[in-house]
Amino acid sequence: MEKLGEIGEHEAIRRLTAQLGSHPLLRKGAGDDCAVTEVPCTGADQVFTTDPVIERVHFQPLDKPERIGNKAAGRVLSDIAAMGAEPQWLLVNVVAPAEQDLQTLEKIYVGMNALCDRFGATLIGGDLARGPCLELHVFGTGTLPSGTALLRSGAKPGDAICVTGPLGRSIEGKHLDFRPRVEEGAFLRETGLVTAMMDISDGLATDLRHILKQSGVGALLDAEQIPKNGTLNQALYDGEDFELLFTAASENVEALRCQWSERFGTALSVIGAITAEVEDLKLRQEENIQLLEDKAYEHFSNATQGGCYE
Amino acid sequence: MEKLGEIGEHEAIRRLTAQLGSHPLLRKGAGDDCAVTEVPCTGADQVFTTDPVIERVHFQPLDKPERIGNKAAGRVLSDIAAMGAEPQWLLVNVVAPAEQDLQTLEKIYVGMNALCDRFGATLIGGDLARGPCLELHVFGTGTLPSGTALLRSGAKPGDAICVTGPLGRSIEGKHLDFRPRVEEGAFLRETGLVTAMMDISDGLATDLRHILKQSGVGALLDAEQIPKNGTLNQALYDGEDFELLFTAASENVEALRCQWSERFGTALSVIGAITAEVEDLKLRQEENIQLLEDKAYEHFSNATQGGCYE
Repeated sequence: MEKLGEIGEHEAIRRLTAQLGSHPLLRKGAGDDCAVTEVPCTGADQVFTTDPVIERVHFQPLDKPERIGNKAAGRVLSDIAAMGAEPQWLLVNVVAPAEQDLQTLEKIYVGMNALCDRFGATLIGGDLARGPCLELHVFGTGTLPSGTALLRSGAKPGDAICVTGPLGRSIEGKHLDFRPRVEEGAFLRETGLVTAMMDISDGLATDLRHILKQSGVGALLDAEQIPKNGTLNQALYDGEDFELLFTAASENVEALRCQWSERFGTALSVIGAITAEVEDLKLRQEENIQLLEDKAYEHFSNATQGGCYE
Repeated sequence: MEKLGEIGEHEAIRRLTAQLGSHPLLRKGAGDDCAVTEVPCTGADQVFTTDPVIERVHFQPLDKPERIGNKAAGRVLSDIAAMGAEPQWLLVNVVAPAEQDLQTLEKIYVGMNALCDRFGATLIGGDLARGPCLELHVFGTGTLPSGTALLRSGAKPGDAICVTGPLGRSIEGKHLDFRPRVEEGAFLRETGLVTAMMDISDGLATDLRHILKQSGVGALLDAEQIPKNGTLNQALYDGEDFELLFTAASENVEALRCQWSERFGTALSVIGAITAEVEDLKLRQEENIQLLEDKAYEHFSNATQGGCYE
């Protein structure tokens, strides 16, 4: 018997996603921020994603309920943004114990709705079930022109690596209050200049590896250029930044930054370059270049305790 | 502070669904088996639903994992069938503790995939998170011609009330092994003769009340005609039958049954008639007619213990 806590989250996800199905209209299944399906005769594709937000894993019991709702909807909207899609419909499964007070749930909905309203998404359904602790499972869809979804697999050697916003120390508050980069994601898709994109949920170093793996490339990051909220290690590994990480041909980066600054106040940083050394992730600090080890945030390996157990 | 265990599931859902959004393309939001949205320029509508399947609430730890997977996908496919739609895409959020063995999860996926394959659905994504007990949150979509979804709100006085399959005692096995009535639901939609439809998850008496409420009508059931697996009470209240409950103008019922029997072996029973007495649910047993009290299956009120607590 192989237990999740021994195998680790990423290997477990790999094994489970191997069991997902295929279909002629399925453009992209597992392995990206969203699944992408073709909607015949419309010139549009639809994207789908799901994210759990669980008490004592993704939030704490005393966190303000509106902020919990913001995070629950925001994680899904961030995944949709990371494809360059426009959010559409959200549904939410709520799990709660009998002693859960309803007012808290209502305030969580207020938080979800406020974020949905801000980004043109609509909460249209869901379910409520009894369970040992408070959990929100949000499902979301989005839409974009057919064949234009920004995947993790398009990065090429020589491409510049870019990120929005400062990274690190999100645990101090940003992980609950972040605004998903929905408008920025759609804008980046529309430029036609972005070769690969994803959002940063597990930390820059871990998430960039997904792009490297799916694109069959490597990367060299420049420590000085990484926008940091705190130390370099915090920027590389903290996670839950919900910023956009993307690549673009280096000759297009100036044009892209120029259009960007006309439209957004959001910081945009060029933090390194894609290399041909498959899956090698390197970091330059002053004159030193080091290979970054893979210390992925492993939800299962790092803790043997389940969610809301005290 | 109003606690879920005091308020009860139905009132809590009513309060939370009051917070759902609206949108010009949203044909039907909360209050039916699925939400229904218009897909512009395609002549099609899309339906959306989510269902949780939680350890010690919806299944037991020693249940065979393939059967747990069947139930998880089946609940969603049954909701889609209850609109008369064709299933399309499914995603699943898995919550599990660190000590969960991966082989069990893989077998759950085998069960989900087998049912998806049988009914033309495709499992395209999801997520895995740490939590105190095993849970599956399945999200599903389906498609059908624009404006043809069978809602709970169309029943009219004089309509015949029909159900598929025998009802009751699903806890002995059917609640895990049922086949959702996907082909039957689409067939019923295609006949154009059905005025309201839903699936039976909380028991015939409880679920019929949803049709009565949403249609502004009453019903008189004939105890003798209800297809029973066990006692009358079991057929009325056990729940988790996942059969279809629908209404049709009485003059169309013979034609409908005739077409049905050419196509399906599934039993189809006419069990009563819709009346004009708003939300009155009555039962005729021999010469007696009694008003049925509302003893809804209340997930929260019936138990103060949360899901997988032992």
